[in-house]
Parts: sequence; C-alpha cells; structure tokens
Amino acid sequence: MVPIVSIVGKSGSGKTTLLEKVIKELTKRGYTVGILKHDAHGFEIDHEGKDSWRHKKAGASTVALSSQEKFAVIKDVKSEWAPERIICSYLADSDVVITEGYKTSRFPKIEVLRKAHSTKPVCTGSRELRAFVTDVKLKTKLPIFGLNDYKGVAGFIVREIIKKESSQTVSLVVDGTPVGLKPFIDDLIREGVTGMIKSLKGCSEARDIELRIKKR
Amino acid sequence: MVPIVSIVGKSGSGKTTLLEKVIKELTKRGYTVGILKHDAHGFEIDHEGKDSWRHKKAGASTVALSSQEKFAVIKDVKSEWAPERIICSYLADSDVVITEGYKTSRFPKIEVLRKAHSTKPVCTGSRELRAFVTDVKLKTKLPIFGLNDYKGVAGFIVREIIKKESSQTVSLVVDGTPVGLKPFIDDLIREGVTGMIKSLKGCSEARDIELRIKKR
Repeated sequence: MVPIVSIVGKSGSGKTTLLEKVIKELTKRGYTVGILKHDAHGFEIDHEGKDSWRHKKAGASTVALSSQEKFAVIKDVKSEWAPERIICSYLADSDVVITEGYKTSRFPKIEVLRKAHSTKPVCTGSRELRAFVTDVKLKTKLPIFGLNDYKGVAGFIVREIIKKESSQTVSLVVDGTPVGLKPFIDDLIREGVTGMIKSLKGCSEARDIELRIKKR
Repeated sequence: MVPIVSIVGKSGSGKTTLLEKVIKELTKRGYTVGILKHDAHGFEIDHEGKDSWRHKKAGASTVALSSQEKFAVIKDVKSEWAPERIICSYLADSDVVITEGYKTSRFPKIEVLRKAHSTKPVCTGSRELRAFVTDVKLKTKLPIFGLNDYKGVAGFIVREIIKKESSQTVSLVVDGTPVGLKPFIDDLIREGVTGMIKSLKGCSEARDIELRIKKR
C-alpha cells in the first residue's frame, strides 16, 4: 500500500492552507503527492452544459476527459467508497497520499489546531495520532509543529510516514474491497505475477504492474 | 479488455447529441457505460480557488474528491496517455466504453455525418469503421442509421461491440503501457491470480480483481 497520512482538525483550523504548503515542500523534495479529500456535503466539479456534464446526466456511470497535460475522471457510486479503495485504485502511483477529512479512518494522523479557533484537539486518545500542528500549549508526548512550520511537517511526513512504510508494494482490491495482505501472501502474489508476465514483450523489467481481472 | 467503440466525425457533426441519446438508451437496457473524451485543446474542470484547485496548483500530481454520490480524480500527466491505458486503469468496470475524438485509434468506429454540415466521411477506407449515422446517401456496404435512430445505434453497439467482444477479461498495464495478451497468457494470468488469492478472506468467489504491484 502507498504510504498514507491524514490531516485532521475542525473545519476552519487551517488544514487546507497547511496542506498547500506541505504539498509544495514535498514536491520540491522530489516526492509525488496524491491528495484525497472527503467531502461530506457533496461537490460539483463538472460544468453545466459541457459535453462531459451532458454525458454524465444522460446516465454514463463514468466520464473521463483526456488532454496532453492532464486527465480527469468523474464517477458515480452507489454508496461512498472507502478511502482505501480509492487510494488503491486511483492514487497508488503516488509516493505518498495525504487525506483530508477522514477523521475516523485508521490512517496515521496529524492534527491542526489553531488557538484563535479552538483549543481542544478532536483526536485526543486516537492511537493513530502522530503529531500536532498548533499554537496551543498542549500536554503531549507527540511532536508539536508551529502553524507555519510546513518544512517541519513535510520532514516529519518523509521520516515517519514515507520512509517507515513497510515494503509492501502490492495493492489488492477484490469486488471493491481492499484486501490486507500478510508479508508471505504479498511475496507470493508479487513473485507469482511478476514471473507470469516476465516473458511478455516489454515486461521483463516491470516496475509498475496494473492488473484487472473481471468476470462478465 | 472492456468492449470499446469510438464515435467519430467532424466537429459539429452531432456526435455529442447522438452520444447523449445512445448513453440513455444503453443505460435503460441495463448496461454500465463509460465515456472517454479526447480534448485536443485541453480542458478546465476544477474551479479556481476551491481546495482541490489550490492543492493541484501547489504541486499535487493527483487530486481526488470523494462524497457519498460520486468521486472525481484529476491527474497531471507528462505526456498524453494512450486511451487504452486510461480505459484499462480507470474505466475497466464499465460494460462498454464509448470514446469520442480518437479518430486515429484502432477502436471500432461509428461515423456521424450530417448533410447540412458535410457530405464527406472522415473515415473512408478505415478498416475499423463499422457503421454510419447519417442523412447523406452513401455508397457503402456498412450499416447506415438515421441521425435520430439512437435505438438502432444502441442495438448495434450491443450486438456488434458488447456481445462480440472476446471473452478476454484480463487488462494488464505495465509501466504505463497496456499489454495485449494472447488467449493462453490471458488464461494463465487469470487462473494463476484467482488461484493465489482464493484462500484469502472474502476472495473465494472474486468477480472483480484489481491488483497493483509497484517497485519503490
């Protein structure tokens, strides 16, 4: 699984601004950053009247747009997808994925707390909490970074999240559910699949394998 | 590979309007439709000032948004991705993918030609051309549908594209390049991977397997 860290904190605490600076800093250091934002209230991203909007409205379950610089995919879901599923399927090519707004997830967390806004952490007692970014004096053994110390936060993410992530490199999603793999199974699948495709043209030195098997 | 058909025709020929009706009809018949639109001129989908826009601008290579009804992914690419790659990685869960604007691809094609706009097909001689949707009298052995005959076009797509697609159910992308598989290799990979994961919890009856292996 790709290394994941979640930035949490009350609405208005400054998560987005911090994240913006941390993304810049991590990108500067050569890391590819993926962002997953949870939007409890829904969002509109497509523009009314555009082709993609018309096709979506006509019933297409997925609409993708591709150009030379980027592409976009908009997909309807029957119920909200688990963040692990989205990350496995759509963000697995990042060096690190930072999520925003998944307070109850099991991802390691960094909480943003701004005195002018609130002095009570939302994550106290959470085993996954790894650090605070705050101007509040807190009694905690966890590292505390100042609100503007984006370099400190980026360094912490590199040290404690990206570099500490296990060497597991296999992501498996079965019928929409991410499947956790023990090291032995991880090895078996990696070696097995790499071996099976090795003799195919252009696959002898495969570094990134995406495989999808679907029964119709 | 998921069944694919490309709607082609000059700009202004009526592709989007036809597509809209065909999507509605296929959806009504129970098919899950994915759309891939090629935009030679680039596109803007994100809204300036929004969080996702800010994160993208800060350098995030991928930004994903998730809500209860849908999710969206916006991704930067260094050079344009082949449509096969996007389809393998992002649209493989559709029953059929309809592309718009990939004139030179090898997908089976349906050309839209509207007399008021042009009387010369753009795809003459293309081996992949399967039908016309037009009000022009053409000398051709291919089926011709009227401009408003979206039911005929949808039926044609079901008969000639969805149902005729080979039973191949394995999509493989290696280091960003889709890899074509001969039936024997397809079987080997499908049986091999299904066998390896069969004993994992919840995987004994797997219908849809997504696997990603990445060397860091």
